[in-house]
Amino acid sequence: MRIRDPIHGPIPVSDEEKAVIDSRVYQRLRGIRQLGFGDLAFPGATHTRHAHSLGAMHVASRLFDTVAGRAGLPLEVCHRFRSAVRLAVLCHDLGHMPLSHASESIAPARRLLGLPSWLGESPEGVLASHEDFTAKMLLHSELAEIIRQQFGPQGLTPEAVTSLITGQEPPGGLSFLHQGVDWTPLLRALVSGELDADRMDYLLRDSFYTGVNYGRYDIDWIVNNLRPAVKDGKAYLALARVAAFAFEDFLLSRYHMFVSVYYHHTAVNFDYMLRRYYEETPGEFEIPADPEQFLLCDDASLRHTLKRSKNRWAERIVWRRGYKLLAQWTERDEGYDMDALVGALTAAGVEHFKVESLGVLSKYTGEEGARPPGLFILDTTTERLTEVSKYTPLYQRYSGPVRLSRVYVRPDLIEPGREVLARVMHAKGTP
Amino acid sequence: MRIRDPIHGPIPVSDEEKAVIDSRVYQRLRGIRQLGFGDLAFPGATHTRHAHSLGAMHVASRLFDTVAGRAGLPLEVCHRFRSAVRLAVLCHDLGHMPLSHASESIAPARRLLGLPSWLGESPEGVLASHEDFTAKMLLHSELAEIIRQQFGPQGLTPEAVTSLITGQEPPGGLSFLHQGVDWTPLLRALVSGELDADRMDYLLRDSFYTGVNYGRYDIDWIVNNLRPAVKDGKAYLALARVAAFAFEDFLLSRYHMFVSVYYHHTAVNFDYMLRRYYEETPGEFEIPADPEQFLLCDDASLRHTLKRSKNRWAERIVWRRGYKLLAQWTERDEGYDMDALVGALTAAGVEHFKVESLGVLSKYTGEEGARPPGLFILDTTTERLTEVSKYTPLYQRYSGPVRLSRVYVRPDLIEPGREVLARVMHAKGTP
Amino acid sequence: MRIRDPIHGPIPVSDEEKAVIDSRVYQRLRGIRQLGFGDLAFPGATHTRHAHSLGAMHVASRLFDTVAGRAGLPLEVCHRFRSAVRLAVLCHDLGHMPLSHASESIAPARRLLGLPSWLGESPEGVLASHEDFTAKMLLHSELAEIIRQQFGPQGLTPEAVTSLITGQEPPGGLSFLHQGVDWTPLLRALVSGELDADRMDYLLRDSFYTGVNYGRYDIDWIVNNLRPAVKDGKAYLALARVAAFAFEDFLLSRYHMFVSVYYHHTAVNFDYMLRRYYEETPGEFEIPADPEQFLLCDDASLRHTLKRSKNRWAERIVWRRGYKLLAQWTERDEGYDMDALVGALTAAGVEHFKVESLGVLSKYTGEEGARPPGLFILDTTTERLTEVSKYTPLYQRYSGPVRLSRVYVRPDLIEPGREVLARVMHAKGTP
Amino acid sequence: MRIRDPIHGPIPVSDEEKAVIDSRVYQRLRGIRQLGFGDLAFPGATHTRHAHSLGAMHVASRLFDTVAGRAGLPLEVCHRFRSAVRLAVLCHDLGHMPLSHASESIAPARRLLGLPSWLGESPEGVLASHEDFTAKMLLHSELAEIIRQQFGPQGLTPEAVTSLITGQEPPGGLSFLHQGVDWTPLLRALVSGELDADRMDYLLRDSFYTGVNYGRYDIDWIVNNLRPAVKDGKAYLALARVAAFAFEDFLLSRYHMFVSVYYHHTAVNFDYMLRRYYEETPGEFEIPADPEQFLLCDDASLRHTLKRSKNRWAERIVWRRGYKLLAQWTERDEGYDMDALVGALTAAGVEHFKVESLGVLSKYTGEEGARPPGLFILDTTTERLTEVSKYTPLYQRYSGPVRLSRVYVRPDLIEPGREVLARVMHAKGTP
Repeated sequence: MRIRDPIHGPIPVSDEEKAVIDSRVYQRLRGIRQLGFGDLAFPGATHTRHAHSLGAMHVASRLFDTVAGRAGLPLEVCHRFRSAVRLAVLCHDLGHMPLSHASESIAPARRLLGLPSWLGESPEGVLASHEDFTAKMLLHSELAEIIRQQFGPQGLTPEAVTSLITGQEPPGGLSFLHQGVDWTPLLRALVSGELDADRMDYLLRDSFYTGVNYGRYDIDWIVNNLRPAVKDGKAYLALARVAAFAFEDFLLSRYHMFVSVYYHHTAVNFDYMLRRYYEETPGEFEIPADPEQFLLCDDASLRHTLKRSKNRWAERIVWRRGYKLLAQWTERDEGYDMDALVGALTAAGVEHFKVESLGVLSKYTGEEGARPPGLFILDTTTERLTEVSKYTPLYQRYSGPVRLSRVYVRPDLIEPGREVLARVMHAKGTP
Repeated sequence: MRIRDPIHGPIPVSDEEKAVIDSRVYQRLRGIRQLGFGDLAFPGATHTRHAHSLGAMHVASRLFDTVAGRAGLPLEVCHRFRSAVRLAVLCHDLGHMPLSHASESIAPARRLLGLPSWLGESPEGVLASHEDFTAKMLLHSELAEIIRQQFGPQGLTPEAVTSLITGQEPPGGLSFLHQGVDWTPLLRALVSGELDADRMDYLLRDSFYTGVNYGRYDIDWIVNNLRPAVKDGKAYLALARVAAFAFEDFLLSRYHMFVSVYYHHTAVNFDYMLRRYYEETPGEFEIPADPEQFLLCDDASLRHTLKRSKNRWAERIVWRRGYKLLAQWTERDEGYDMDALVGALTAAGVEHFKVESLGVLSKYTGEEGARPPGLFILDTTTERLTEVSKYTPLYQRYSGPVRLSRVYVRPDLIEPGREVLARVMHAKGTP
Repeated sequence: MRIRDPIHGPIPVSDEEKAVIDSRVYQRLRGIRQLGFGDLAFPGATHTRHAHSLGAMHVASRLFDTVAGRAGLPLEVCHRFRSAVRLAVLCHDLGHMPLSHASESIAPARRLLGLPSWLGESPEGVLASHEDFTAKMLLHSELAEIIRQQFGPQGLTPEAVTSLITGQEPPGGLSFLHQGVDWTPLLRALVSGELDADRMDYLLRDSFYTGVNYGRYDIDWIVNNLRPAVKDGKAYLALARVAAFAFEDFLLSRYHMFVSVYYHHTAVNFDYMLRRYYEETPGEFEIPADPEQFLLCDDASLRHTLKRSKNRWAERIVWRRGYKLLAQWTERDEGYDMDALVGALTAAGVEHFKVESLGVLSKYTGEEGARPPGLFILDTTTERLTEVSKYTPLYQRYSGPVRLSRVYVRPDLIEPGREVLARVMHAKGTP
Repeated sequence: MRIRDPIHGPIPVSDEEKAVIDSRVYQRLRGIRQLGFGDLAFPGATHTRHAHSLGAMHVASRLFDTVAGRAGLPLEVCHRFRSAVRLAVLCHDLGHMPLSHASESIAPARRLLGLPSWLGESPEGVLASHEDFTAKMLLHSELAEIIRQQFGPQGLTPEAVTSLITGQEPPGGLSFLHQGVDWTPLLRALVSGELDADRMDYLLRDSFYTGVNYGRYDIDWIVNNLRPAVKDGKAYLALARVAAFAFEDFLLSRYHMFVSVYYHHTAVNFDYMLRRYYEETPGEFEIPADPEQFLLCDDASLRHTLKRSKNRWAERIVWRRGYKLLAQWTERDEGYDMDALVGALTAAGVEHFKVESLGVLSKYTGEEGARPPGLFILDTTTERLTEVSKYTPLYQRYSGPVRLSRVYVRPDLIEPGREVLARVMHAKGTP
């Protein structure tokens, strides 16, 4: 079967994968928009995690096929690894909650999910993340049986797929050994890492649907220059150094998408209001821990609840009646003082809220322990491998985050708000 | 203000238009997908009537500006006509019901809407159409007041806008006179006609979101060659004849979108099942005649009802468990016989249904009375005007419709179904 | 190796193909623009036959791979057929002469090329066509040796490649037999036919470079629905009937590109003037029959000659000083009379020329003998094969050509010309 | 008139501009490719300076119109400034020499051009640059008269246009004063500056034609956020700070185009060989100082000369027989030593050459004196203006250039070359 995709053209899908896609667990993703409140700022951006996950699966094969073409793996092994990567990428977003990450704040306690212990402890008070729900759906829903039936003959289990997504080792040990080499790090890097299929799809897709160009990067050149790199009995993902600039462009594309699209002041505005709604109406909307009930928990069910709610934030969200942006700035801008502004607004009785978003180049930058897992730059002349963070100066150039500060006020108070702002700025010596 | 659109780039919006867009009536369109069940066949096609209407409004100005640039209208008149066309196009889809035209089958009786008499009689038994609801929302919801406030100073009323959309003359008479010439036919042609802003946007948009190319046509060339044509005291829309081939390509683009996308066998499948659901569950889901309640009636509310329904079709729709396509054909295909096939399936106890869709080049083709309203081809050398249907041979070439015949069977009966099909085809002498 | 192409992305090229591409015979195509004078009307359309041929080769594999994937050919046979088709498509334009088909009017006598007799007789007075030169370069230039060296081990000869391009059978007999089935008709259909790789690339490419949309069609859907069809010991190209509308759209795309781009009045204008230049300056520019000299014969060498020429048309061509378009019309336009207009211009002493271009849907339409070679529509339900021209009503709908009539006048006489035109039109009763 | 462009769609052109475009001086640009040897690496990149200059002119209006819309200039003044900017951008590349900047090495002495003294001194030994030739063609060719005729009524002279392009003040003094404010700095910034129409077009265009994405940036957002900024009696170009990230993305796009496309190893290879050709064949090809002869000096005339040359580099260039790339690296790569490698190749008798290219973020980075002329970031809340280089951290982050080092060897010596390379690398301790 082939599924039409506006980004990648026709996406081939195997019969086994079709069974997964046809499951209710996967179909649920039709009801989860990729950008949450993003369409409030970019009306074209109504795309779902359903389409994204299909696209990411397709990208995953492109990545894998180049790497495998250089690895000399036997056909059968190659086929099994490929199936595993595609399936893991297809399923990586199954546990996403409605509309935005804000919904994770009302997730049930992680321990209520009853996840197996190899996925880690569930300390008191820790809430289930979307990754936890992904594991839950893979292991404890009808999907587990579908995967066993369809992919069992290839030696793939729900546990193996979960392991590739979460990075945790299942009880039976490693599943991706071949001739003494463990291919897990490489496969995992394709599923989740600095240059993974997830990011590679969503940047293109979000650019396409928002109409904003930042997310375009040179996917062909990057794909063509991926290589396997075996070190100490483990296979890692490597990129030939002629594609190092393309990789930098990819990282910068993502950075610019964050500061311009994902942290757009409208999305941030409604995320905040949803958070306030959750705080003020405990129990009104709930994320069920039970897989069968979780199937019904999507954007539409949250919207349905919001529509019937009496809460003030709910009504604002439903009818797109956000607070008004009074001011926004970054560290580069002189004369702004959050404390002074917020203090003055409070004193003047202007209802408001503030949100601060941190834009970073990569979650793998910064402190020592968070290096990009197993991405190397390969000098094909000398076969030298260098950790990507040591090769490119980009991580260093962008070592500090950018802080996007915003203050919003109640719409009918925008004029008094502006007067307060002018007064505060003037006091700071701004012309 | 400018709204980002992936098709047209930044769409400029006036403050008056912003007030309309911010209304709950318009925001409701965020919850109405443009292609109904289309995303079941084309997962990328999740775009809404909200985004389409913005895009169509933008196209409308492009059309109008070329025409007006040739018409020598005074600035003030030009501005008023332009506002009217943009507003009419922006609002033309406000009355669409959830998910698909199938929902019109459960619409309330038209007379319950209490529309003014100049919009026509409401005979017993006639249901409200989406055009009726559009008129309703324009005249009897909060939007009416917003339009009066924002556009009143320009001399525009909710009635004038409604009139441009429906083609019916309001009590006060014509609003678009200038120096004895009635511009209504031209303005109306931009809102609803063979070459209107609605079609021009949706072909591009649906192509973009489905990933199917048919809908592309040469918008720039068409726009640049639009002209006003005054005849007998009325202004009509004309196209310079150098763009006649571009117009033919536009009509054919639309035709190919119909047979390939809008009548895709999956969309047709679910449309049919929704119709069955409505028949079997009278009252379970309703289209309210009251504007305030209509605000809450969107795709999500229908889905919410379907999810909780016990009806067999409802469950199929919610989890994308359609009947399976057993056979499809057109008149061009030999050896198919709908009656024989359906009879044999019934005899064999194979549950099934059939759907037939008619693809036509244009609703304005065919019988005499349905000519494209006021579209002329202009010979700029001789100033000769020819009705488009008399100029291009295309209407004659495509005078007959194409009939897409499909038979679907219950998924678990696909094998018996195929056996029946083979038997019937064999009996017809097919190899 | 991969070559970057803006239409298809990275195009993979084998080492053997690289040797052909690096030959001087192929590199010559960098100097032959695809659209001849087309860039005078569409400044972006400077693309060459070099890039087009690479693109067409790439499309050829896409077509072949789908067909072969359904044919169950052994790997070695599959590889050889694929190489043959790619090579034939890569080389199909090698014999193109500078700038436009007008140059064929000064081609040397065909017999001077000394082509082998299996390519057909060379009657007195027949000039060499670009196909003849293609055969010449394949058989008698350095390229012949390169092909023998690189592709000989796969069993491919310059003769076999020439045969696929020209459709003539070489002395040794058929090269593309497998288990008693002759695959020549299918392979040839991919190289030259109603749905060949040449057309499929140039429509996309010319659309891309001109900025005109007509040439877009649904390549993915067509490719995915190609099938082999074996009949009477021969394999033919077939298209599953679900892609029949896509094929119609493809034919119409081509038709609209002809009437709008390839027959654009500026291109037609300069083609005509080049023809006049050739008539008035016999021997000033020549197409050499010798392969080594032919290597130097390209757009630049013709332009160089034109620049130094004293001929009036030459100067007009070099500095883009075309005659001015006075009038253009088709049969659809009333009131035009070529004889009357030309007669009146002559009588009035207004220097002018006329050009008439015939736009047809397909060269395979019309009289009985010119059917599309071996393209069938396949009903995958019944396995019934129908000749495409009997399946689709399109050939019948478009059975008549459209005649584009133009009259051009010397630029400084455009005003007198317009007066003559007005007088003639008026006499015909035009308002 | 409207000219079709695949990047920007139809480009409107005034009658006055049409006269300039129809001049032989402008038509000459049809024979100058934008990327010189770039099409040897990217076969699709055959676009010319003719099309680029049209596109840049179109972008210039978009930039100007936003700025002017905020400036409240009277209609007549606005029209004159707009014409000036468009004309200057249209003409900014008129003096480009054939194929590549390498041709500037054989340019005639600047003093031979006889440029007026206000354009600066012409010291002994200084060669004419392409900017000098642009001034020459504007002031001393048939174009000067055309400009006087067409644009004189608007108060524009060839000198004023030249001044906008070169940045030098003509004898009559400033032409772009309005109510005591000098708009020259702003107009000049649109013609030539950190964010000028030239760059904005060529990044999009080169991306489009090469098929490489790096050059895409958010043109809509940047355009919409341009503002005029008046300071000390002068008007400067400013960018609202909400577009600061878009500007950074624009600069990075350009940087990545340089290191990936403009400095592609093939383009660099042939540039070098052309330079060697010029050195070894003094006088064989010449750049004429006389405008009438300069009209005939284009890519085709250089290619014509190269084809007939006996020089070894000439033949390599004509038939794309470049030296082979043996090794390339940047400072990031360890173990490479240019001196050692070149020494060892010389010692081993392997003919070779080296080329080093410096990639910088902007020519305005680095030493103090080279600030981007008059580009400011505007805080629209506080009206504060900050020089762009002080606002964005990007110039500091990218303060050092990247050095692309390449060594090429004679193709038949690639194997010995590789052995030498391996030996040298090994001696440096590379694995």
